[in-house]
Amino acid sequence: MNKSIFYHAGCPVCVSAEHDIVNLVGADNVEVVNIGENRVRISEAEKAGVNSVPALVTPNGNTLHINFGASMADVKG
Amino acid sequence: MNKSIFYHAGCPVCVSAEHDIVNLVGADNVEVVNIGENRVRISEAEKAGVNSVPALVTPNGNTLHINFGASMADVKG
Repeated sequence: MNKSIFYHAGCPVCVSAEHDIVNLVGADNVEVVNIGENRVRISEAEKAGVNSVPALVTPNGNTLHINFGASMADVKG
Repeated sequence: MNKSIFYHAGCPVCVSAEHDIVNLVGADNVEVVNIGENRVRISEAEKAGVNSVPALVTPNGNTLHINFGASMADVKG
């Protein structure tokens, strides 16, 4: 995995953080995944250690939770 | 301000996040400030909206709180 993955759920905190991350890292270097809409990827996010969104999973597999939008329980509920 | 500023306090969560952010954004694009040691910059961080460390203040002035290492109260205490 060479790209980072930014998981979000469409909430205002997520959208703001997405803009910042894309500006900082570069759009070509990050895949943006809305797990509120693309629910099949929720389990993948959880396996990567995502406890809340927005979160950025780095190419080396670390998960950075950014601010706090919604817990995974909220996204699934 | 063209660089981001990464505020931390030397805690393990901070050090891990620092490595990730520097790798993602590039060392030339981020100033790293340890407000545990460089305490004169605590008030600057608070004015930028930093509530906990580690946090990244972007060039456009947004504050991204990353994971959770320590509250500002802990750093000051």
